Amino acid sequence: MESAINVLVSQFKTYAAKDGSANTLSKEEFQSLVTSQLPNFVKNASDPATIDQLMKSLDENNDGELTFLEFWKLIGSVANQHGGFSQ
Amino acid sequence: MESAINVLVSQFKTYAAKDGSANTLSKEEFQSLVTSQLPNFVKNASDPATIDQLMKSLDENNDGELTFLEFWKLIGSVANQHGGFSQ
Repeated sequence: MESAINVLVSQFKTYAAKDGSANTLSKEEFQSLVTSQLPNFVKNASDPATIDQLMKSLDENNDGELTFLEFWKLIGSVANQHGGFSQ
Repeated sequence: MESAINVLVSQFKTYAAKDGSANTLSKEEFQSLVTSQLPNFVKNASDPATIDQLMKSLDENNDGELTFLEFWKLIGSVANQHGGFSQ
């Protein structure tokens, strides 16, 4: 499991480092990550409205950036759906 | 990223299926998973007190079982620490 967690951490860092703060995802970085890394788990990721809606639901402090933990919630919900768990 | 997420989902299912509900982790299943899958990320996992304390902090509905999303919070916090993110 640890190697899988390392993949998720390092991928987040790769996309977060593209512009601005290296520890958070801007909307552009978030769209780039979702489009290329989660093509099957997040549908219509190339549609800006999808990204806007996802950002709003995740960006708890509304600073236009996603921290790792805010981003982690998205991964949790898509994993939860993909895993077929009821909650 | 999707393959890493699949690893985490399938490992959760492997341990959750050992006894009781196949969709949740009992304390024993949780200890077995943490001890063997997160040896570097969770210290002293073989100490029952560590597992008790983790379970209490994660088991939001206090039913003695961890759902996937409750478990996902642990993975998020160890990934967050391991990734060196401030929050």
